[in-house]
Amino acid sequence: MNPRSIVTQLAINQWELVSRRATQLLNQLSNEALDRPVAPGKNTGKYIVGHLIAIHDAMPSILGLGESKYPELVDCYVKQADGLVNSPKTVPELRQLWDETHMRIGKLINSLPEDDWLLRHTTMTDDEFNTNPLRNRLSILLTRTNHFSYHIGQLRLLLS
Amino acid sequence: MNPRSIVTQLAINQWELVSRRATQLLNQLSNEALDRPVAPGKNTGKYIVGHLIAIHDAMPSILGLGESKYPELVDCYVKQADGLVNSPKTVPELRQLWDETHMRIGKLINSLPEDDWLLRHTTMTDDEFNTNPLRNRLSILLTRTNHFSYHIGQLRLLLS
Repeated sequence: MNPRSIVTQLAINQWELVSRRATQLLNQLSNEALDRPVAPGKNTGKYIVGHLIAIHDAMPSILGLGESKYPELVDCYVKQADGLVNSPKTVPELRQLWDETHMRIGKLINSLPEDDWLLRHTTMTDDEFNTNPLRNRLSILLTRTNHFSYHIGQLRLLLS
Repeated sequence: MNPRSIVTQLAINQWELVSRRATQLLNQLSNEALDRPVAPGKNTGKYIVGHLIAIHDAMPSILGLGESKYPELVDCYVKQADGLVNSPKTVPELRQLWDETHMRIGKLINSLPEDDWLLRHTTMTDDEFNTNPLRNRLSILLTRTNHFSYHIGQLRLLLS
């Protein structure tokens, strides 16, 4: 294994670790628990779950490797704050979308050839990317992994 | 910039991004806010701040690049749950330790030569590392960055 592939593999492993722990946590939380805010006046568990699905579902599109499957989640769970828009999905439906999305993203990031991680992502122009080669696909993966951890820290508060 | 250094630089940038945002958040939170639990019955802001300082203060030692400066924090903020041990530090003292620790870790990770990131960390034996070269210093950095994000998601709930 050359040094470059070790580092990229570490980033992929980190995503998978966070994703696996998050799924375990979600499976421990009842539908009723997910209806509660993580702290008084803050987002509900359901909103955070929908938010994470919507953000992760958009990863193939941002990486230039596919389309979003659930664009209808974006308005309710990304653009709008919790409670402002009726959810297009129930909690049991969100659980199915969660499993499908994380299975799909896991396969996608594991199948991407090493060098392709260093290509630009689709929100960058070629010119911007030539100026800053750090804005590549792998930066998206690292950023999304940290965003995932951030919200899982909150969701964890719903465990009694 | 060769591909390997791009990937390592991304991991360092990610730590710095999380660290900078965390410090901004801490500066927005009053001492009184930090005395409150992030959700009913959960850890206080003060405990999370002490926990992050203790874990990050131990990073040089785990990386094999120095010693902990505040080992007295470990019992109160890592080994024991919140409220079981009297804190050896006040919130204003913790703020100073936070700034010193994150300044020190930032300098340390920026000064480490590229290839040194791929060496084993001190909790691994040589034999274990030969079997699994993924257990290197960079894996510690990625893991700690995600742990940082996890708790910052919780601390963020104290903002009104």
